[in-house]
Amino acid sequence: MLNDVADLDRVFHALADPGRRLMLERLGRGPASVSELGRPLSMSLAAVVQHVQILEASGLVRTQKIGRTRTCSLDPVTLRSAEHWLSERRTLVERRLDKLGEYLAETADQATSDHRAPTQKENP
Amino acid sequence: MLNDVADLDRVFHALADPGRRLMLERLGRGPASVSELGRPLSMSLAAVVQHVQILEASGLVRTQKIGRTRTCSLDPVTLRSAEHWLSERRTLVERRLDKLGEYLAETADQATSDHRAPTQKENP
Repeated sequence: MLNDVADLDRVFHALADPGRRLMLERLGRGPASVSELGRPLSMSLAAVVQHVQILEASGLVRTQKIGRTRTCSLDPVTLRSAEHWLSERRTLVERRLDKLGEYLAETADQATSDHRAPTQKENP
Repeated sequence: MLNDVADLDRVFHALADPGRRLMLERLGRGPASVSELGRPLSMSLAAVVQHVQILEASGLVRTQKIGRTRTCSLDPVTLRSAEHWLSERRTLVERRLDKLGEYLAETADQATSDHRAPTQKENP
């Protein structure tokens, strides 16, 4: 889990770039070399390397150099940490909205029965 | 759901700042005014307003002006969209790692039984 504020800064910053998200989408299908990651992107190899470095620093990607090839893979633990931060916030909001919905439904029921009561008295 | 690449750019960019995440954490506990959001942050009201504008443009926060007060609340739908993007990637990687684990376990079983076979012949 990423507990450090700076860790989450790096993860969300890494995710904010469409080119880097395209690289992560590619890595979702399996490990790939740096040049494979750069293939669909119209940028220099140096720029691709820079993006990979940002992804690696965030912990979203792990790289391993075997011979002359650096192979990249996705780290599911870091992805889960970012997901966890978002789901915690969302669950809190949804729970509060559910409670508000229940309260409004109860209030509406109450209003309906309060409205019906005199009618029953009028027609015994 | 956020289908547009630019939408996700804006959401992850909004999430990459620790001050803005602090504001989202506060909004997880309920709606708040702009000045309430800025209270724990050591920054000018103008800076707080700028952060709120970034959060609003990303869709993570909705604001409503009643009289002189602008009230902010979290939008769970946008949070869910960002979560969804992350979980799709993570699920793909985890599924592949599970398959790899199963393959390695099967290979290990095979190796063990291949290793046992001659032993049985030697000791009939």
